[in-house]
Amino acid sequence: MKLLRHGPRGQEKPGMLAADGTIRDLSAHVADIGGDVISDAGLAKLAKIDPASLPEVAAGTRLGACVAGTGKFICIGLNYADHAAESGLAVPPEPVVFMKATSAICGPNDDIIIPRTSEKTDWEVELAVIIGKHAKYVSEADALDYVAGYAVANDVSERAFQAERAGQWTKGKSCDNFGQLGPWLVTRDEVADPQNLSMWLTVNGEKVQNGSTTTMVYGVAHVISYLSQFMSLHPGDVISTGTPPGVGMGMKPPRYLKAGDVVELGVERLGQQRQDVIADA
Amino acid sequence: MKLLRHGPRGQEKPGMLAADGTIRDLSAHVADIGGDVISDAGLAKLAKIDPASLPEVAAGTRLGACVAGTGKFICIGLNYADHAAESGLAVPPEPVVFMKATSAICGPNDDIIIPRTSEKTDWEVELAVIIGKHAKYVSEADALDYVAGYAVANDVSERAFQAERAGQWTKGKSCDNFGQLGPWLVTRDEVADPQNLSMWLTVNGEKVQNGSTTTMVYGVAHVISYLSQFMSLHPGDVISTGTPPGVGMGMKPPRYLKAGDVVELGVERLGQQRQDVIADA
Repeated sequence: MKLLRHGPRGQEKPGMLAADGTIRDLSAHVADIGGDVISDAGLAKLAKIDPASLPEVAAGTRLGACVAGTGKFICIGLNYADHAAESGLAVPPEPVVFMKATSAICGPNDDIIIPRTSEKTDWEVELAVIIGKHAKYVSEADALDYVAGYAVANDVSERAFQAERAGQWTKGKSCDNFGQLGPWLVTRDEVADPQNLSMWLTVNGEKVQNGSTTTMVYGVAHVISYLSQFMSLHPGDVISTGTPPGVGMGMKPPRYLKAGDVVELGVERLGQQRQDVIADA
Repeated sequence: MKLLRHGPRGQEKPGMLAADGTIRDLSAHVADIGGDVISDAGLAKLAKIDPASLPEVAAGTRLGACVAGTGKFICIGLNYADHAAESGLAVPPEPVVFMKATSAICGPNDDIIIPRTSEKTDWEVELAVIIGKHAKYVSEADALDYVAGYAVANDVSERAFQAERAGQWTKGKSCDNFGQLGPWLVTRDEVADPQNLSMWLTVNGEKVQNGSTTTMVYGVAHVISYLSQFMSLHPGDVISTGTPPGVGMGMKPPRYLKAGDVVELGVERLGQQRQDVIADA
């Protein structure tokens, strides 16, 4: 299933994608896409619904982030060997973990907003994992059982805020609209191998990132197990698993986003996003 | 006012402290302490209620974290000059910002749980600020208008996870029950000067931290204004403003918590907390 949320920001309703590509409204069945709805039992209930029986949502309706109630937006840094190299950093001996503010999360096609004092706003296509049930001290062998599904994420990053403004990456990762998530949550039954998905990102039509999760250093199962040794993961938590090479910071000379740019990105089987870049008002 | 949340974890009800020290239930007036309830208008409504008219909550009832719906748990690092010195680190040229997982938040007297592989679990008494309305690009002069109130926080920290396990502090700051918050949200009208509050922490009755917010490097108004240049702050967001000297890591030799220890801490005007230290099951 491809689950989604449609409607104006803050008023999104649950939906699912039908086989014919139309968006169908799930409001009569569930309140939102999150919490118990994305547990194994919740997903099994939704799987019994024929999308064609649901009301069709008007084409062009805005999509929100594909999951609601995200308590943690956890990211893995330098998780592709080639991206670490372009960043001038070594592959870390164990996963580098940081958090983006959940207030950065937005719809897959919502604008990238350049903060007022930004000069180095950059892109990062990533495979995001959406947790479906409480995970604590889980083994790598069992870890994928805790996944509700996968989605495309753009881990938008301001490199000066991230690295030149004293300690920790939080400031460069948490700006408003720095976390496009979706278009849909693709349930894990449709992603046989999360470590074999191609991914890409273009700026104004030019392909700048072109990678695959095959080159991920610490895979999805390892990352979930690893994180769960430190903290509980809860339904709706999002783990963004790092970006392959091709970010603006790694170019010679570096290239950053400016108002008017258009960013498009996608991950195999998970759909794609399109963002206009605008300056903050 | 002193607003609080009482009852079993995950089922907390809103309450307030009466002048006689009894806890009174606010369930008939508001659903929880958070969101619009802690806006200026929401607090003005609550201020009209006579606590003595509210049902009394049984003495000994558990208290939850004093605010619900926290989207971000932001912390300021090395924000007391003496604490930076004991950590062997320089005072940063601008605030160091990191995030704790919101899933670490718990009640003021809930156990400190030592994670399974932890050897360096440490304490940090802090002044926490609870945001009452949306803040973005606010000036330092206006910043305190965005505060709903203040609370005591224990920014429990695992120093090996924080500093010895590859990049970023997140892993050492986000463990379950690493963020005791409360006992109450003290509304800002009762805290004339957040930069003149004494604060203390004891381990097994021995005073180990004994400081004051007078020595905070970047004060509350500066921190709110600063953060709002990077990201929106929303009602219920918590900013923990750093710890004064006296953490276990800074002792010679370092001293860390072990099962059976008792930690007590408080901030002037904001109440106090008491935690048993236990090993994770």
